Amino acid sequence: MKKLINKPEDVVKEELEGVALAYPDLVKVHFDPDFVYRADAPVKGKVAVISGGGSGHEPMHGGFVGVGMLDAACPGQVFTSPTPDQMLEAAKTVNSGAGVLYIVKNYTGDVMNFEMAADLARTEGIRVLNILIDDDVAVQDSLYTAGRRGVGTTVLAEKIVGAAAEKGYDLKKVADLCRKVNINGRSMGMALTPCTVPMAGKPTFELAEDEMEIGIGIHGEPGRKRMKLKTADEITEMLALSIIEDSTYTRTVREWDEDKGEWVDVTLVDPPFKAGDQVLAFVNSMGGTPDIELAIIYRKLHEICEKKGLKIVRNLVGRYITSLEMQGCSITLLKMDDEMIELWDAPVKTPGLRWGI
Amino acid sequence: MKKLINKPEDVVKEELEGVALAYPDLVKVHFDPDFVYRADAPVKGKVAVISGGGSGHEPMHGGFVGVGMLDAACPGQVFTSPTPDQMLEAAKTVNSGAGVLYIVKNYTGDVMNFEMAADLARTEGIRVLNILIDDDVAVQDSLYTAGRRGVGTTVLAEKIVGAAAEKGYDLKKVADLCRKVNINGRSMGMALTPCTVPMAGKPTFELAEDEMEIGIGIHGEPGRKRMKLKTADEITEMLALSIIEDSTYTRTVREWDEDKGEWVDVTLVDPPFKAGDQVLAFVNSMGGTPDIELAIIYRKLHEICEKKGLKIVRNLVGRYITSLEMQGCSITLLKMDDEMIELWDAPVKTPGLRWGI
Repeated sequence: MKKLINKPEDVVKEELEGVALAYPDLVKVHFDPDFVYRADAPVKGKVAVISGGGSGHEPMHGGFVGVGMLDAACPGQVFTSPTPDQMLEAAKTVNSGAGVLYIVKNYTGDVMNFEMAADLARTEGIRVLNILIDDDVAVQDSLYTAGRRGVGTTVLAEKIVGAAAEKGYDLKKVADLCRKVNINGRSMGMALTPCTVPMAGKPTFELAEDEMEIGIGIHGEPGRKRMKLKTADEITEMLALSIIEDSTYTRTVREWDEDKGEWVDVTLVDPPFKAGDQVLAFVNSMGGTPDIELAIIYRKLHEICEKKGLKIVRNLVGRYITSLEMQGCSITLLKMDDEMIELWDAPVKTPGLRWGI
Repeated sequence: MKKLINKPEDVVKEELEGVALAYPDLVKVHFDPDFVYRADAPVKGKVAVISGGGSGHEPMHGGFVGVGMLDAACPGQVFTSPTPDQMLEAAKTVNSGAGVLYIVKNYTGDVMNFEMAADLARTEGIRVLNILIDDDVAVQDSLYTAGRRGVGTTVLAEKIVGAAAEKGYDLKKVADLCRKVNINGRSMGMALTPCTVPMAGKPTFELAEDEMEIGIGIHGEPGRKRMKLKTADEITEMLALSIIEDSTYTRTVREWDEDKGEWVDVTLVDPPFKAGDQVLAFVNSMGGTPDIELAIIYRKLHEICEKKGLKIVRNLVGRYITSLEMQGCSITLLKMDDEMIELWDAPVKTPGLRWGI
């Protein structure tokens, strides 16, 4: 295993120490339980937006803490769910009284722990709502999930919802917006190479020199198909068409009903894309793929969207939700309306995403 | 070779097409000869700042074109110098009449071609000055250079000098500032893995599973020493101390003398770092190294700087000058004065670096 680390068991702790030293004007780090939070938290009158998940996907989530995005992020060990005590302490630290939204990627451990944390927070008098992100069209169920996995749309949700909270939306409106982003976003990824979890010391899977995995998960979970390496244009087409031609997706998720005071089943329906839609096109590196290749992917994606009548009104090209050093990419398309565009454009200042400030 | 590309010979062209599609509000791309330039160029009354070099180091240089940084960037093929016709056309396109500064990394091909381009531009009535960046303390001469290579300080020079040009500095002042940044910046890099140039199809060098290369160049040129893999803390110490303890570095470079109308030899003296210095600390990924590892490096670098009495007043942690998918990192320390800090903080809006706008 070749990594710039000291002891594998210290990776997350030492990374957080580095983050605290590098960005003292933006974030603070609380240790034991571990979470990264806004240096100016709690922000008076503002709904607090919190996310979290296994480490190894940086800059998500800790790199998105700051003005206009997350109030806190709870990192687990690499590819391991954080625990409810992290989420609870984070909520207590950043809650200003206006309530907390937990943005939760759909992985069994994350979902369970964020629900538990929400229940605990409510017993301490904090209003909390949980919204799920489940946008990966590759597979229905996977190693870590029941239902679609939460991937690229998470980054976009954190930006858009973070801007809304900054603007003064109340908790209910922030949660509704987050749900809207989720049902309008779809993603799919692929890998050329695996990655190595420091504590495991060996690659999460193996791929022959001429093979790739289409539909890979961000933890190296198997995808739709292992196949011979194809050209960038062919790969882009496979990912983009899987997203664009995905049909209506209906499922039931659990959300907290504040009126009833209990968890209820909510049916979510993702409408398919259609000609005339305005979209944000997000080309993401899995970590080890260079910018030069992302630009080649974007070039083809732009052509495909045009051909399908999708108008790209905003884009994001770079490394935002990664799997350590994995080579590969993912594509996310998010149908945008005017509200979402305005919130996307709003100022943001975090270690991983910054403009307008 | 596993890459998200189509034909190896089309990589740079298709990348530039992707860049043009992704950032139409920031940059335009001119093909044949190839260069990326500010969408609003020429900017009236402003000195134009141009850089360039082989592709494969993205976001440098094309990703640094935009408000507050470069006016144009000339990309060669991967790890290959651009040609004088690119640099000349770029100068003609972005020159507003206030003259052009070429920021040139010290590689034999780049130096020669930028000098030739400057001579050609002058015959067309454009004022041009060339300033060299030669900041790599690892080796004196290498495969591509006579003297120290130009590496991480280039990114910092492009930001600081770009801000000065935006602010209205005249050509002479912009060039003087660039020279000042160069003599105050020092860098050193290391690699855990090689990278593969698309046209070559195989890795630029080989490293055993337990080996690393200290002092590597950004084209995979051999460095100071190949050795057994060490911990992140030990590696950080090797790089940081090589920089901090580097003694006065004196060499002669060629610069254009506008009064004499000829190239003259100029002696440059890099003063060593000393306790009490204010520095910008830049931890850079060679491309394939994840953020989590960069934060671990930064943590140790911060400790070392403190111990040595260097005060980190600004920092930059991420992927800015890369070698395709190479895993590894480089450290740059730049001694800052108040002028440089103010220019560093000035707004910038490019695909690769953005704040304040």
